[in-house]
Amino acid sequence: MNETINTILNHRSIRAFKDEPLTDEQISLIVQSAQAAATSSYLQVYSIIGVKDPAKKKKLAELAGDQEYVEKNGHFFVFCADLHRHKLAVEMEGLSEKDIEETVESTEKFMVGTIDATLAAQNAVLAAESMGLGICYIGGLRNRLDEVVKVLNTPDRVIPLFGLCVGVPDQDPGKKQRLPMENVYHVDEYQHDDELFKKQLASYNEDISAYYRERTQGKRTHTWTEIIAGKMTKPVRMYMKEFLKSVKIPLK
Amino acid sequence: MNETINTILNHRSIRAFKDEPLTDEQISLIVQSAQAAATSSYLQVYSIIGVKDPAKKKKLAELAGDQEYVEKNGHFFVFCADLHRHKLAVEMEGLSEKDIEETVESTEKFMVGTIDATLAAQNAVLAAESMGLGICYIGGLRNRLDEVVKVLNTPDRVIPLFGLCVGVPDQDPGKKQRLPMENVYHVDEYQHDDELFKKQLASYNEDISAYYRERTQGKRTHTWTEIIAGKMTKPVRMYMKEFLKSVKIPLK
Repeated sequence: MNETINTILNHRSIRAFKDEPLTDEQISLIVQSAQAAATSSYLQVYSIIGVKDPAKKKKLAELAGDQEYVEKNGHFFVFCADLHRHKLAVEMEGLSEKDIEETVESTEKFMVGTIDATLAAQNAVLAAESMGLGICYIGGLRNRLDEVVKVLNTPDRVIPLFGLCVGVPDQDPGKKQRLPMENVYHVDEYQHDDELFKKQLASYNEDISAYYRERTQGKRTHTWTEIIAGKMTKPVRMYMKEFLKSVKIPLK
Repeated sequence: MNETINTILNHRSIRAFKDEPLTDEQISLIVQSAQAAATSSYLQVYSIIGVKDPAKKKKLAELAGDQEYVEKNGHFFVFCADLHRHKLAVEMEGLSEKDIEETVESTEKFMVGTIDATLAAQNAVLAAESMGLGICYIGGLRNRLDEVVKVLNTPDRVIPLFGLCVGVPDQDPGKKQRLPMENVYHVDEYQHDDELFKKQLASYNEDISAYYRERTQGKRTHTWTEIIAGKMTKPVRMYMKEFLKSVKIPLK
């Protein structure tokens, strides 16, 4: 097993950081790493915003559901799908926004932007972790995107997808076990035996329950399917489609 | 600079592979690496299909727009957003599909699935590249998803997002230069000076043009904004929204 795979397999989400800001050199290496990721058809449909301003970080922490580590970390990045740059690019070729509207407003290009930004983000994560830094993705940034776009002053057709806290870890949490490999990885075609699937999940449930029992001295013993039932019966961020329309990404 | 960052910065897409299938150990390490990525709220909204069957690979190569390397590689993976597993999970808790329908059909959960699958994919890529293997993402898999789901026999609420060829490289292409960092990375808020933006793109255009001129002995000299104008004025995969509806992901 090599150093890169070790870094990958040792991932934990870190939610407490020492008060040590990243150096400009670290930030630059992380962004360069993000940019080195593959990008669909060379389109590079994303932007990254690095937030240093303490007032903005405080506001984003509140908007993300009072997550203190959004404010207190070594650096806070926001990864955005970005279809704004392409308007400027085609203007340089004598075209206008109208000429690319059908493309820009499509569900397909929304997917490309989401995928491009996420590939870049995971490269940033592994670069940071390989330097001994810790990270935590902040999906909570999507709780209130109408407010987030004001804080970050993003133009139309830029969608903040998630935040990323990076910094020197001030905690050492355990790794959270993933689904059994045979439940996630299928050979040649999707596995359709629901009973086998549920048997795998039942075995996983036992492991997860044991993990929580140990971590909480027996106070919590919930299983993965209990977690899923709890979360999936409570719809969240149901405003998303309307928000996307409001920034001119109507998912046509 | 450490080994992981070296691996990240050395990424090139490889489109010709030696006829050497990946070993089961390599596949297992790549999938484990994929699974180690962060996942939104522990939901693990993705599946991976590894395609070995030569007939299926040939068919997928055709569907992706006659890309030969989809057929000829060391292994072919398909990364899918997967909201099917959660139905089985909640059934184990005495609930039914109806109880989670609003969540599963939301635009937000489609984003979570796309993001989760992509985080996993980029971990797989870096694991593979760190072992000396080459990779190429296949967005062309989205050309004909109506046919792809038949080949992979995926159930409703599973969306094949992209393919990934992995194998021993049989070519050594140059690295493609990315946008200038200051064009992609913004500090504290999005940069709104369009003229500065275009100046950065003009300078990038010169570099890209020189790259193509050198690579093609002067036959091609196109710039990045020319590429963008060409691609963005031709809408592609405009059936995507209808396809998603057909697999019960209506982006509500």
